[in-house]
Amino acid sequence: MKDYVFSINGKFVDEGDAKVSVLDHGFLFGDSIYEVVRTVNGKLFAADRHLKRLHKSAQALDMPLQRDDDWFIKHWRAMHKRRGGGESYLRIIVTRGVGPLSLDYSKCDKQNVIGIAKPLNVWPDEDYAHGCKVVLAHVRRNPKQATDPAIKSGNYLNNVLALKEAREHQGAEAVMLNVEGHVTEATTSNIFMVKDGVVKTPARKEGLLEGVTRGFIIEVCRQLGIRCEETIFTGDDLLNADEVFITGTTRDVMPVGHIGRHKIKRTPGSITIRIANAYHEVLHDPKNHQ
Amino acid sequence: MKDYVFSINGKFVDEGDAKVSVLDHGFLFGDSIYEVVRTVNGKLFAADRHLKRLHKSAQALDMPLQRDDDWFIKHWRAMHKRRGGGESYLRIIVTRGVGPLSLDYSKCDKQNVIGIAKPLNVWPDEDYAHGCKVVLAHVRRNPKQATDPAIKSGNYLNNVLALKEAREHQGAEAVMLNVEGHVTEATTSNIFMVKDGVVKTPARKEGLLEGVTRGFIIEVCRQLGIRCEETIFTGDDLLNADEVFITGTTRDVMPVGHIGRHKIKRTPGSITIRIANAYHEVLHDPKNHQ
Repeated sequence: MKDYVFSINGKFVDEGDAKVSVLDHGFLFGDSIYEVVRTVNGKLFAADRHLKRLHKSAQALDMPLQRDDDWFIKHWRAMHKRRGGGESYLRIIVTRGVGPLSLDYSKCDKQNVIGIAKPLNVWPDEDYAHGCKVVLAHVRRNPKQATDPAIKSGNYLNNVLALKEAREHQGAEAVMLNVEGHVTEATTSNIFMVKDGVVKTPARKEGLLEGVTRGFIIEVCRQLGIRCEETIFTGDDLLNADEVFITGTTRDVMPVGHIGRHKIKRTPGSITIRIANAYHEVLHDPKNHQ
Repeated sequence: MKDYVFSINGKFVDEGDAKVSVLDHGFLFGDSIYEVVRTVNGKLFAADRHLKRLHKSAQALDMPLQRDDDWFIKHWRAMHKRRGGGESYLRIIVTRGVGPLSLDYSKCDKQNVIGIAKPLNVWPDEDYAHGCKVVLAHVRRNPKQATDPAIKSGNYLNNVLALKEAREHQGAEAVMLNVEGHVTEATTSNIFMVKDGVVKTPARKEGLLEGVTRGFIIEVCRQLGIRCEETIFTGDDLLNADEVFITGTTRDVMPVGHIGRHKIKRTPGSITIRIANAYHEVLHDPKNHQ
């Protein structure tokens, strides 16, 4: 079983050959997009939703994908097969490609597609049992009208700097506010709170990545008859919540126990547990496997 | 005389070998910083100021430079020498280095330094004689409290998307407003306006890169006895200016003739010409050469 597996434009290469030109605009300007698909029992989970979002990112950056959906699905499968066992984290990055050293990308003709596969992340049991610790970052999330967080791109410094703040306080994740002071998302997860039986998550217009897991959770709430609102709330609202949890492709549903030094009322709360259990069924439902 | 010249960690390589690992955080997240030094008569121009800013970017990203100033000066000179003639554009990129596939950079031990040299840009004579065309971009500049534009980093999508708007309207540059609607800078230049004999440029707190040329222009104004304010102004103020010009390491002082379809009153105006001439002397002053 292999740890890391690399590919360049569909061809598997050794780590030493897994390189891109320094004139690739993905390297020069972070001018690239990506998606991470995970496996469940060796099958691709929700690859159709990830592909849809990849197209959305591509459209926002004026870089229509030069390979078809079938190519991506087949390559995700090949990446997992190449690893040879266990569950996989399958990242595909599409760059603008090589071009002159200029912000003008009109001469970047050929996108480069980079594959990086590794074992699916394993998060501490403790974080699921008693809730993880997150911090409220000082650095604010890029606004929608500047570098839109809905684009899953190679511009991740904003999140790198927020996660640094979390690490400095032994936090697992950093929750980011927008410039208006509203909660948006965490650096690699979406955030939900529960107050008086109602589930709330920041609305898309606040500036965030529409997580695939986030989408499933909203559907799960509907099926369970739990009211779920896409709305506006602040850091203070989060501190006063009854329950808080974060969601993501590798994390699933992870309860939050502390925000900084503040302890969340119930960890994990009963609604979080119901949602986590229902999401577990979604994860293992063959109709979500490709 | 060579067109492009490449180096990796100080070693010159052919273009085919000018590559970085796909696990370099500079590629994965745009987690890198850079500077561009130009030559004047084959000497480095203002390399000390560029180095100072490189340290500032490094500090903001918690990545203290692993090579000393002397190394950078010597390598900039070697890059120019390697080109073998003409004036050079000398870009040095410092990346976070290779590490695990995570926003957490604590295991990225060894920075990578990439050098890319090419002939100094030549901008159209017409743009200097009658002023270039710029557009006011719809995409807003990242705010200081999110991804601070004062950090010269590998996160450039914000500017890539703004320049796309300029290209769509045959503009040479795109002027970006912050989320409050105040003018900040253009995608690879700073902006100045002249109104009633007073020169104005956006204050640093509006969110912008403190251009080396911008700094010289402020000093030049002082020497010429022209009042120069670092202040706040809007796109409308810019349209109503008597004169407008942009500045940058490769552009020097370039008058702006049109903002979109709007013609600027005087192009080039008399104050712009005085400043451009004085800056020409700064450029050729041996005390600014290294």
